[in-house]
This record gives sequence, C-alpha cells and structure tokens, in this order.
Amino acid sequence: MGSLHENNVSFSPSLLVGEFKPLDHEEFRRQAHQMVDFIADYYKNIENYPVLSQVEPGYLRNRLPDTAPYLPEPFENILRDVQEDIIPGMTHWLSPNFFAFFPATVSSAAFVGEMLCTCFNAVGFNWLASPAATELEMVVMDWLAQLLNLPKSFMFSGSGGGVIQGTTSESIICALIAARDRALESLGAGGISKLAVYCSDQTHSTYSKACKLAGIFPCNIRIIPTTADNNFALSPIVLRRVIEADVASGLVPLFLCATVGTTSTTAIDPVSQLAEVADRYKIWLHVDAAYGGSACICPEFRHYLDGVERVDSLSLSPHKWLLSYLDCCCLWVKQPNLLVKALNTNPEYLRNKRSELGSVVDYKDWQIGTGRRFKALRLWFVMRSYGVANLQSHIRSDVRMAKMFEGFVKSDPWFEIVVPRTFSLVCFRFNPYKDSDPTYIELLNKKLLDSVNSTGRLYMTHTVAGEVYMLRFAVGTTLTEDRHVYAAWKLIKESAEALLKRSYYIV
Amino acid sequence: MGSLHENNVSFSPSLLVGEFKPLDHEEFRRQAHQMVDFIADYYKNIENYPVLSQVEPGYLRNRLPDTAPYLPEPFENILRDVQEDIIPGMTHWLSPNFFAFFPATVSSAAFVGEMLCTCFNAVGFNWLASPAATELEMVVMDWLAQLLNLPKSFMFSGSGGGVIQGTTSESIICALIAARDRALESLGAGGISKLAVYCSDQTHSTYSKACKLAGIFPCNIRIIPTTADNNFALSPIVLRRVIEADVASGLVPLFLCATVGTTSTTAIDPVSQLAEVADRYKIWLHVDAAYGGSACICPEFRHYLDGVERVDSLSLSPHKWLLSYLDCCCLWVKQPNLLVKALNTNPEYLRNKRSELGSVVDYKDWQIGTGRRFKALRLWFVMRSYGVANLQSHIRSDVRMAKMFEGFVKSDPWFEIVVPRTFSLVCFRFNPYKDSDPTYIELLNKKLLDSVNSTGRLYMTHTVAGEVYMLRFAVGTTLTEDRHVYAAWKLIKESAEALLKRSYYIV
Repeated sequence: MGSLHENNVSFSPSLLVGEFKPLDHEEFRRQAHQMVDFIADYYKNIENYPVLSQVEPGYLRNRLPDTAPYLPEPFENILRDVQEDIIPGMTHWLSPNFFAFFPATVSSAAFVGEMLCTCFNAVGFNWLASPAATELEMVVMDWLAQLLNLPKSFMFSGSGGGVIQGTTSESIICALIAARDRALESLGAGGISKLAVYCSDQTHSTYSKACKLAGIFPCNIRIIPTTADNNFALSPIVLRRVIEADVASGLVPLFLCATVGTTSTTAIDPVSQLAEVADRYKIWLHVDAAYGGSACICPEFRHYLDGVERVDSLSLSPHKWLLSYLDCCCLWVKQPNLLVKALNTNPEYLRNKRSELGSVVDYKDWQIGTGRRFKALRLWFVMRSYGVANLQSHIRSDVRMAKMFEGFVKSDPWFEIVVPRTFSLVCFRFNPYKDSDPTYIELLNKKLLDSVNSTGRLYMTHTVAGEVYMLRFAVGTTLTEDRHVYAAWKLIKESAEALLKRSYYIV
Repeated sequence: MGSLHENNVSFSPSLLVGEFKPLDHEEFRRQAHQMVDFIADYYKNIENYPVLSQVEPGYLRNRLPDTAPYLPEPFENILRDVQEDIIPGMTHWLSPNFFAFFPATVSSAAFVGEMLCTCFNAVGFNWLASPAATELEMVVMDWLAQLLNLPKSFMFSGSGGGVIQGTTSESIICALIAARDRALESLGAGGISKLAVYCSDQTHSTYSKACKLAGIFPCNIRIIPTTADNNFALSPIVLRRVIEADVASGLVPLFLCATVGTTSTTAIDPVSQLAEVADRYKIWLHVDAAYGGSACICPEFRHYLDGVERVDSLSLSPHKWLLSYLDCCCLWVKQPNLLVKALNTNPEYLRNKRSELGSVVDYKDWQIGTGRRFKALRLWFVMRSYGVANLQSHIRSDVRMAKMFEGFVKSDPWFEIVVPRTFSLVCFRFNPYKDSDPTYIELLNKKLLDSVNSTGRLYMTHTVAGEVYMLRFAVGTTLTEDRHVYAAWKLIKESAEALLKRSYYIV
C-alpha cells in the first residue's frame, strides 16, 4: 500500500503515517496470536458442540447484514460473531464423535505447514516463480511414493513423477485428458465419439462427471454393476466382456478407473487382474486410492496395491487419512510427458530461460489451472514431524478402533455387519427380527440414523449397496479415541432399544 | 487417535497415556504461536531477501534426504530448515519489490480468516455437511456483487448466485460446461463437433486449455487477433465477422470469453458491445475480470463492467487484488440451474432430506470436484475488517503508485510507455535511440530485465503484444509503498545507463 504525490520523483516518508496498512507485521502478530488461542480453545472444547449442526436453512442470512460494512469493524467483533453465528452452523468434522463419510484428518504439523504456505503466498505456476515450491513438491511426492512402496516408474528419481492436486476429481480429469489426447492424436478430434471409459457402480460419482466434462459421450461411459457376493469389487471377467462388446461395435476403449477403498463400502477392485485386461486393450488404468491408499504405508495393507506397477496413474488424498487438512490429493503418473502435452500452456509473459531449456518442472502443465499454492509444505511438515513410524501407528490405531466397533456389532444379536470390514469403515445395520421385510428394516435403520444424529452426540451417515440400506460408521478423526467409539456404540444401542419399544405401538 | 484392546466393551482411560496425539491442543498452541512469530518476523524482514530466487535447478534435492524420516523430528529443526533450505529458494511474492506478473495481495484479516478455515476443516460439499460454510459463501458472494454494483440477476437475493472457485480456469470450465451441455441437449452428443468458441489473442491461455479440456474441437477455437491501435481489445466487428463465417459453414457458436484487464497488458474488451453480438447469436458470454474486476469496486472504474447485466457469467479473483491470499476466484452466474444441471452428482451416501427438498444450495454441484474448503471466511474477514472504504482506497493507492511510475517513464527521454496504462500495470520499454532496429531494442530490454532481476532488488517480467517486446511493471503487493516504486525506478535507470555504456563497446 502506497501513499503520496503523483508523478513526482522526490520522496517524503513522513507522509506515510496513518495509512491503510493491511499487513502491518505487529498487527498481524497480535491478531494471529489471538486466532491461535481461539483455535486451540475450539479444539479443546470441540466435544461440547453438537457434531451435526442443528440449524435450519437460511439461519445465517437472517443473522447477517445484507451488505458489507463501509467502515472497518474490530477484530474482536468478528471473532465474537464466529462464536455466535458461525459455530452453531458448523457440522464439526474434527469432532471425535464425527463418524460420517470419511474423516478428514488433521494435525498440528499440517496446520503450521499450512500457515507457512499461506504466509509465502507463492504462486508456483512454474519453477522460476518459486523454485522451492516446485522442488519441495517433487521431493515429498517421491518420499510418499517410497512410503507406499511404489515402483520407481512413478518417481522423479525414476522415470515418472507426482503432483499435488486439490481433489481426486482434478487428478482423474488430468489423467483422463492425457489419455484422451494421446488417443485423439491418431484418431483425430472426431474420434472422441468413439472413446469408451469404464468403471464400476461403486466408483466415485466424480468419475462419471469427469468423463462427461472431458467430452466423453455419456452413452460411452460404462458403469459395470458389482455384487455383494464379490464385496462390490469390479470383476475383471465382466469388464472384459463389456470391453469386447465395445470393440466389436467399433468403440475405442480409453480409460479405466479402479478403486482401492470405495466411498460407499471401501470395496477394493483387483488392481493386478484389471491391469491385465487394461494392458490387453491398451487402456489407461488409473487407480483411485483416495482413502484406502493411505493404509498402504503399512506393510500389512500394501498388498491392496499389488499390480500398481502395471497401471498408468494413481491418486491418493492425504487430506483423508494422512493428517493433512484439505485440500491435498497426490497424483502420480508414469509418463509425465503425456500430462504436459495435454495440459501445457505457453503464454509469453511466463516465458523464461529455465523453462525453455526444459531443465525444470513447471507444474502449471500438470494441472487444470495456472495458479497453485505451496501445498508441499504441509506434507513435508507431517512426514518430518511424525515420521513413518507414527503415521503407520496412526493408521493401525484407526483400524483397530474400527475392529473394536465391528466386534460390538457382531456380538449383538440385534445388529449385523452388512459388508466385511477392510479398513476403518464399518457397514452395518439394525436387524432385530432377522427375517423381516426389507422395506421395514430400511425404515428402521433410517429412523435409527435420524434419532442418533439428532442428538448431536455423534454423526454417522448411510449408504445403499446391492440394494441394501446400511449405516456407515467411519472411524478415525484425529481426536477419536476408544472412549468415543464405545460411547457411540452405547448411544446407537440405546436409540435402537427406544425405537424398538416405540415401534411395538407403531408397526 | 485411539488406543486399547480390541473387540472389548470395557474401557480403561489410563492406557491412553503416551500415545501418538497429532492434535493435542496445548502442543498445537505452542507450535502455532511459534509459527506466528516466525511469519511476523518474515514479513518484517522480507525486504532483506532477494525478490527473485537466485538458486539453480535441483538445489533442494541436493540438500534434502531421499526418504522421509522413520522417527519424528523436532519442530525447531524443521523451522530451521525452512529458514536455511526453503527461503533461499523462494521467489518472494509478498516482497514490496515484487513487480512481476500481477501481485497476489494479502492481509492480516485474510490470514486469520484462512487460519479459521483450516481450523474447521469442514468439507462443505452440501449444505448439511456444513450449513455455515454454504450460507456464509452465499452471503459474501452477494456482498461482493453489491460492491461491484452487479445486477440482482447475479445475486442469491435476486435470481442468480455466486460460488468461490480456486482459479479462473475452474470458473471458466464450469461456465463452459453449463453452456455446452445446454447446447448438446438439443444437438445431441455428436453436436460437440460443431460447437465453436471465441476469444481474443489476449485472452488468458487457460481459456483455450479449458475449451480443449471440455472436448471442444481445437479447430473450432477461434482466437481473434487484436491490434495496438485498439489497445489490444477484442473488436465486436471482427468477432461478428468470424461468427458469421462459422454459422455459414454450419458451426454452432457457443461461448465467448471477454476480459476486463488482460494478463499481458490489462486490455479491456468492450463488454457492452460484445454482449450485443453474443445476444444475437445466443452465445454464452463470460467475463473474465480476474484482475481488473476488483478495481470496479471504485465508482470511477465501474464503467469497465458496463454491459455486465447482459452477460451470462462473470469471474473475479480476490486473491489478485482484494487482499485475500490464494486461492479464491469468485464466479457469478445468472442461471445457477444450468451449472447444477451440468455438474451435479447424487451418490446415495450424500443424500439427505435437505438436499432432496431442494431448499438448500449444495455447492458440489457448482464446481468440478466434490470436496471444498470454507473459503468464504477469508472474504468475510477482509470485508468486515477493512470495510468498503479501505478496500477502495487500497485500489486507488495502487493505481496512484502506478501513475507515479508512469510519470517517471514519460518524463524520461530514454524510456517510453508502450501501451496506455489503465489500472496498476505499466507496460514500457527502454528505447534510447528512438528509431533503431526493433530486434536491437528487444535485445536491449531483455538485457535490462536480466540485469535488474539478477540484482535481487526487484522482480519484473515482460510480455510481447503486437509483436513488441515490453517490460511489465505491476504495482501493488500489499507492502509496496511509494519508496519502493521510486527505488525500483532508480535501479531501472541506473541499470539502463550501465547497459548503454557497455553497449557502446558491444554493438
């Protein structure tokens, strides 16, 4: 922020006093310290808030003015409004009693890493615009690849490389565009009508969205059904049959997305066998290991990635299970040149000798947008602050707590496990009269879910797979301990009992 | 993080001691306070660092270990390495002597807002997952729309609405997909081969990338040349001629991107006249006001948005000129239903009564990905902490400093303004012998740029428009004051003089 007279070479610092200085370092220090205490207290007291917000739609608009203020307001007033107006409308994702969706895990290390990323505000679109931002990202992507025991073909120290995206959606789009443009090079632009893509009915919904976004004809998106018998994994045999039919009808198989840990039930597609099929038809195989991939830093889970040496790309979101805060999705590719070919831009104003010599990585050519943050700091702080040992024990601890909950369910005659547990998600249902009407069981479970969530004491969600409605109990927010899992089970049991008592009179 | 025995309902808190607790609130407090002081000191001393990093490619890989540590490392060691290994590799975007690209402006208010966003780590994909995150975003998007004097048709309080994206690229893709899918509804999927899109040769390079990404045939992307006579604005007359030729050859005009403040020279496309053409051919008109839009919160600049009431969508990046840190790009649309239609997903596990009643906004259907952060907090903190009055004076101060620099250039016989200044970017060149060979002038300016940037005392970049190589002096990092602009000019002058002295012997 400047000051002073126009078009005048002379300079008088005294006139600077009393100006608008939005980054005065002492004011910054004061406010940021105050915010640290606010946040530390929030974490300390987080269990006191209802996990699922209990507000009604429109609650906030009614509380806030219609326009921004003309004059500044004190920091303290804004903090007060955070407490009074914002917090009641939060669903507290970091509450230890949050068992919905998948937990979005965090840590002190990632928080301070994120502060530093914000601090620099470096826009690392190319190497020169921030060498450290690019190079640290290359280093941490290789580190994480090693933790996962990925082959060298995915590492910068080998022949591949990795990049931090925001979300799985972005990772899939980038891989898909690279595959698409490689195919269109020989087919011509009109060939897009012939490209067929594959997934299962358990693949994340963002995959079909990404395919449509990339111009794949909706009629050429094959969503292959799975079954409970197969634990909702994509069958290589069925896949092959579908591909063969497509080839026979003149389509060109382009892309397959396999999942290690689906969002609904953590189903695991057999990567190795799918890679065989993909190989045969020259299909780009992407593995979405957004959630399940993190577990593979433990040797006992690594086998779920077996066959990864034969796939083309892999994505994993440390913001889910590696304590990293949002948003952080790691994408590794075997052939970075294909990404760059599809996604590069070369405006004059970004040209520089380093890029032209081809001696550096310019990450703008590995992603959708141009601008990008220095997110690698977060992963660097996490890996260094905790070490591989603690990260492994963190995964194991969550799985152990999920097993504990699974044990509660199994040992209770009123409840049942619906899909075998693999990682830290338990899919179960309340089924007190084993042979009753499926519609009635569904209704009962919906009522149970509503009743539990409306207490504010925990938050769970549901899913449907193989036409069965089930409850999802996803263990593992950073603050969750055994006592929270135990208390959750107790609440679920009590609510089920109350429901049953009432339903004697209702049904 | 849990603890304890498996499959056992009894519970003993004493066993919790000594565990891995990555979010212990007192440890968090200690580290975060330490980081605040680190950052405040960095801001205090930022002028001591070379603006443009002077490291060589690969510098960091050589300093860091090849693998992540197995055991934890102390926070203090990591901070030390930030100072010793990371900072030398930073190009300091927040340095007051950074005049490259466009500045990415920041503020204490946005920093603490961002801390709070990180703190909650709310994944606001739908309303229920965090009502406050969705509703505050709706509120601040309306507030900012009012600051810009946008018509009600872009506001939630009218018939439209806004959403916070990461980058302009994402905003353009979302608008483009909405337009594309509306068109394909009547044309059928095969119609994609007929869709033509329009921009000028000054439009951001991400636009063509977005079009290709969306499956628009590269041969149907019309990049219309501009000229220096017209200050590099897109001519509605030429546009119309191109469109007519396309229509005559059977193409379907789909989308036009107009820019208010291009990246190269801050050229301004005539929105109102372009809207007339777009209207006539039923083309979706998007305005990319990433940088220039922010100036329009001042009444004296608002006329650059005249005609916006006739466009379909508008994007603006507060991370550029509204003190907001990365990444934050605001997208307003007149018909949110078209965005939602093109981008919605509906997996079972996200279903909830609120969404099914249609009474709430689910922002996952307004963007590419599913997950999203609570970025609205940053804009809310900025607008409340500073008020409209200070935000306007911040814009004016930057423009005034740019005018001052423009004055220096104009008053010096060795230099000349190449493109008339509009906002806070000055496009100029060193041209001591007015009628010399253009190749020689270009060489001279390249040498001048290298010589200035290699001092580390400032960082400027260049561009080429109308085949003329010129230097870009973009004023306005948050910490820039008159004295920095003055010192920059002095350095440029001195370097030019030295260059001229040397070139007597070279040329």
